[in-house]
Amino acid sequence: MKINKELIHFNEGLDLESGSRLDSFDLMIESYGQLNEDKSNAVLICHAFSGDHHAAGLDPESGGIGWWDNIIGPDKAIDTNKYFVVCSNNLGGCSGSTGPTSINQSTGKVYGKDFPIVSVVDWVNSQKLLTDFLGITKWHFVAGGSLGGMQALQWSISFPDSLSKAGIFAAAAKSSTQNIAMNEVSRESIRKDANFFDGNYIEKNTKPRNGLKAARMLGHITYLSERHMNLKFGRKFQKADSKLSGEIDYEVENYLQYKGEKFSDSFDANSYILMTKAMDNYDASASESLEDAMSKILCRLLIIGFESDWLYPPERGKEIQLAGMKTNVNCTYVSLPGEQGHDSFLFASEKYDEIIKSFIESR
Amino acid sequence: MKINKELIHFNEGLDLESGSRLDSFDLMIESYGQLNEDKSNAVLICHAFSGDHHAAGLDPESGGIGWWDNIIGPDKAIDTNKYFVVCSNNLGGCSGSTGPTSINQSTGKVYGKDFPIVSVVDWVNSQKLLTDFLGITKWHFVAGGSLGGMQALQWSISFPDSLSKAGIFAAAAKSSTQNIAMNEVSRESIRKDANFFDGNYIEKNTKPRNGLKAARMLGHITYLSERHMNLKFGRKFQKADSKLSGEIDYEVENYLQYKGEKFSDSFDANSYILMTKAMDNYDASASESLEDAMSKILCRLLIIGFESDWLYPPERGKEIQLAGMKTNVNCTYVSLPGEQGHDSFLFASEKYDEIIKSFIESR
Repeated sequence: MKINKELIHFNEGLDLESGSRLDSFDLMIESYGQLNEDKSNAVLICHAFSGDHHAAGLDPESGGIGWWDNIIGPDKAIDTNKYFVVCSNNLGGCSGSTGPTSINQSTGKVYGKDFPIVSVVDWVNSQKLLTDFLGITKWHFVAGGSLGGMQALQWSISFPDSLSKAGIFAAAAKSSTQNIAMNEVSRESIRKDANFFDGNYIEKNTKPRNGLKAARMLGHITYLSERHMNLKFGRKFQKADSKLSGEIDYEVENYLQYKGEKFSDSFDANSYILMTKAMDNYDASASESLEDAMSKILCRLLIIGFESDWLYPPERGKEIQLAGMKTNVNCTYVSLPGEQGHDSFLFASEKYDEIIKSFIESR
Repeated sequence: MKINKELIHFNEGLDLESGSRLDSFDLMIESYGQLNEDKSNAVLICHAFSGDHHAAGLDPESGGIGWWDNIIGPDKAIDTNKYFVVCSNNLGGCSGSTGPTSINQSTGKVYGKDFPIVSVVDWVNSQKLLTDFLGITKWHFVAGGSLGGMQALQWSISFPDSLSKAGIFAAAAKSSTQNIAMNEVSRESIRKDANFFDGNYIEKNTKPRNGLKAARMLGHITYLSERHMNLKFGRKFQKADSKLSGEIDYEVENYLQYKGEKFSDSFDANSYILMTKAMDNYDASASESLEDAMSKILCRLLIIGFESDWLYPPERGKEIQLAGMKTNVNCTYVSLPGEQGHDSFLFASEKYDEIIKSFIESR
């Protein structure tokens, strides 16, 4: 499968929900498949918290497989033989689009902690500009899991005429108190790292690796189901010759240490704080009831929850479905077993594939 | 209610499960009520992770109310008018019994990180020495919640002749993979605090407050039920004049910051690591099946789980009950709704009180 990677510059800038403004910005995108003549086969993929534009295929530069490669590709649930699939790296991230590690054109210095707060609504607005740039008038399907599912929901509310179908997987119309609480512990770990320097670590030529590592270790636990962790690691001891540190006893400790370490190499701490805040702050019912917000929706919704997901459990998807039903939104809600907890949305299964496929292809 | 507080020195020392030895040690205890003439009304309370000997009543020195004051006192579920109730601070803690902040008599220096690893079995062994010191041959009841419940279970296995009844509340026969994983994140936060100095922070006249704070914030989330958090805080914003820091948006963030801050003032980091390791390492079925381990039990067991507890959910209590039934242990298992998640074991309720009371008083 051919991967088209492109950095697109937007001169027109973007007014943000917070009242701040980005005078100009870049979006890094990838696309797969071919846009058809009447531009009716375009699919927009919204990424989750630590995701990026590389949603599918093998990146020849990094050697990395796309984060939703299980679902997107030739003959897969989102079939790149039939659809033109676009995934954009979110503003505020650290993988190519404008974010805290970018140079602020007005100062000539790295944004760092001065990068403005962005929100799910801002991301959807920036993706609308991308839509116009690509000459697409209506997405056939906008989909994502977790924070990506929040964007898909917001797309259907913000731009009802600009999409036919939305897929909202392992997501919620707003984060729960516990979601916020967990994210706050992660942010606390980062902010109190001696190398955070109040967010100005790049100027100091360092990064708060320890804080990022602890944050990711915690995040990782919340992405997995308890049952899956028990099956995978149980109470097995880590073999002495492969322990990452002397303090480790159990395999699960070694695994989390490894995952945290690896993540802290690649991710930016200010992006971490910004993205978790965007997740915490998203509330489709912030200024009106969810029913009223959803009454604007014209597209069809597919809402999927996973039973082993305790971060955004299926009940949260059901809330969207119930609000949608009250205002005659054409919506389907499915709860699948999943085995991987919150991460279940990333993995293919016969049923999951079939449901996505038949939803996309239905008329 | 009169509180008797006593520091008891044990010259005989203690051989630990790890192979290390404490040549001598102190236990700080509190007791309430009167031991009767035939010494048949003695109750031993085992404390949970960050608890201490101050289980009930008002400590005139600190002004603090005991951690199980809802349950222990005159006319309460554990009635100090009828029973002589003893609670001992665990070895390795930081509230009076010998632990990492104590002076190592053989070096004349603070133990710090060199304090030996202790286990649930070691705690029970030290409490057996206390039992002998007090001249008690058989406890009428040994009880505790969480890590305290693990000690009550171990008491019934280690010293079958030395207790008539055991109360195991919000506990498990071993920690789950997720329990271990959460504790490892907390330990990681502490160990990577720039003021941890590999555990030698006391020598440096400092302490890893930030790490302790983040650890406690995470712990605190796991003690509460998601529903209770939603009801208590929801997505309410913290008022500007009472924000503990500028980064706070939500009430739940402020609450966790406050709780974490307060805890980091009072608790010792090496004790935190040691206590969580003891919790992770406890496994009543480590060297034989749980059935075989429990086949030694002679006392009656009362096992209580709380439905809103996701740290040690009721199923974990049921596992103990099922293993006990297979080996003819006289055991009763009750699952109560609870509202406070794991912390439910700390709070009184009509049913909880009644069950404890009727179990203690039954013949």
